[in-house]
Amino acid sequence: MKRVMLIVSYDGTNYHGWQVQPFAVTVEGVLNQALCSLTGEQIQVIGASRTDAGVHARGNVAVFDTESRIPGEKFSYALNQYLPDDIVIQSSKEVAATFHPRRCDCIKTYEYTVLNRTFPLPEYRNTAFFYYGALDIEKMRIAARAFLGKHDFAGFCSSGAQVQSTVRTVYSLEILHDLKEEILRIRIRGDGFLYNMVRIIAGTLLEVGKGNLRPEDMERIIISRERKEAGPTAPAKGLKLLGVEYL
Amino acid sequence: MKRVMLIVSYDGTNYHGWQVQPFAVTVEGVLNQALCSLTGEQIQVIGASRTDAGVHARGNVAVFDTESRIPGEKFSYALNQYLPDDIVIQSSKEVAATFHPRRCDCIKTYEYTVLNRTFPLPEYRNTAFFYYGALDIEKMRIAARAFLGKHDFAGFCSSGAQVQSTVRTVYSLEILHDLKEEILRIRIRGDGFLYNMVRIIAGTLLEVGKGNLRPEDMERIIISRERKEAGPTAPAKGLKLLGVEYL
Repeated sequence: MKRVMLIVSYDGTNYHGWQVQPFAVTVEGVLNQALCSLTGEQIQVIGASRTDAGVHARGNVAVFDTESRIPGEKFSYALNQYLPDDIVIQSSKEVAATFHPRRCDCIKTYEYTVLNRTFPLPEYRNTAFFYYGALDIEKMRIAARAFLGKHDFAGFCSSGAQVQSTVRTVYSLEILHDLKEEILRIRIRGDGFLYNMVRIIAGTLLEVGKGNLRPEDMERIIISRERKEAGPTAPAKGLKLLGVEYL
Repeated sequence: MKRVMLIVSYDGTNYHGWQVQPFAVTVEGVLNQALCSLTGEQIQVIGASRTDAGVHARGNVAVFDTESRIPGEKFSYALNQYLPDDIVIQSSKEVAATFHPRRCDCIKTYEYTVLNRTFPLPEYRNTAFFYYGALDIEKMRIAARAFLGKHDFAGFCSSGAQVQSTVRTVYSLEILHDLKEEILRIRIRGDGFLYNMVRIIAGTLLEVGKGNLRPEDMERIIISRERKEAGPTAPAKGLKLLGVEYL
């Protein structure tokens, strides 16, 4: 028996999110089926991030246990033969039998993409949130600083999630602006994120960009711990989990 | 009556190319229907480039005549309400009644995208050709120089097209390499391209990158005027018409 870790990329457009659900096609469900086809075993992967419907990943992490003789680093090649072209394993390796992708300390990096121009571009229709109005990017950058560090992010969490603590640490929050493509990328690194936290931060920063909130409102909103004080939850399709680094 | 020019962007994945066909969904057909819904007129657009199935465009050009009172520059806003999200008008304006997008002198720019890494990335599955082997990009750049200028490109043309002359001028042919994303973009500007010419040039340059052809073979292949001497036609999904400039 060995434990294998997969780095999984996917376009979430055609999936009802990561987590297995009855009567819905999910990334986790498709991975389990592909592993069953490959190994003949009943395998259930454990994911690092249970992304929502429509959310994408460049490098989500999944682990599973297997009796298979396939070497850990060869699983990527073998498993990709059984996967659709919107889910691709980027690498695989054997890990310690005790490794659990949600219980180990890690840094997650997410990116929220906004297409900010007069008309949308078809190639970004599933992977960016389109907004045609003016955005004050410098104000968004000033506002972004308020999120850095350790805070109670209770106001930046959708209801429905059960967590012991709503305190999280944000290590960096950059806003990259590709002038040529008129694309804004809000990139955030942290030790973990509450349910919808990245999308609510993105939605709040967009309100600053539009002029509906001021950069100096951020501190008050964070301290309030009230969901209604923050901006709206930005649409799922703009969000991508770039990667998970284990410490 | 006035003549209106549209700049049209589309993801060609779900279309049987540009040109209207019976029993197939095409970009031109969808544009005609949208214009009919908007104006109540039976309109047939004329396109600058009749792209193949699976080929994309950032800025193809279409013109049509209309009695509509909608000002030329407002057609983009109005027409986008009637179009699916994989076809978007980027701008519109009134042009001279004599303007014909295929009979006027122009410069077309195409880009061929190659994803060159160990495993594909799901978000590029419809918009790039995936190749995992090593490519010698410097050799491809040297080979690219042979295509510059005025040549008889009869060897870089698929059969089936009827053209009076197979002489075309290539103004530039750059190979851009995005190391981070492991993407190669072959960008070519010219006064016009024969049927499949960009895809055959891309396929030939890829043979150089793989080591199956040498940069110094290019001149001989061009002079031969024989389709069988050139490389294979690279897959449609990697090709995008970036734009058309009228002189």
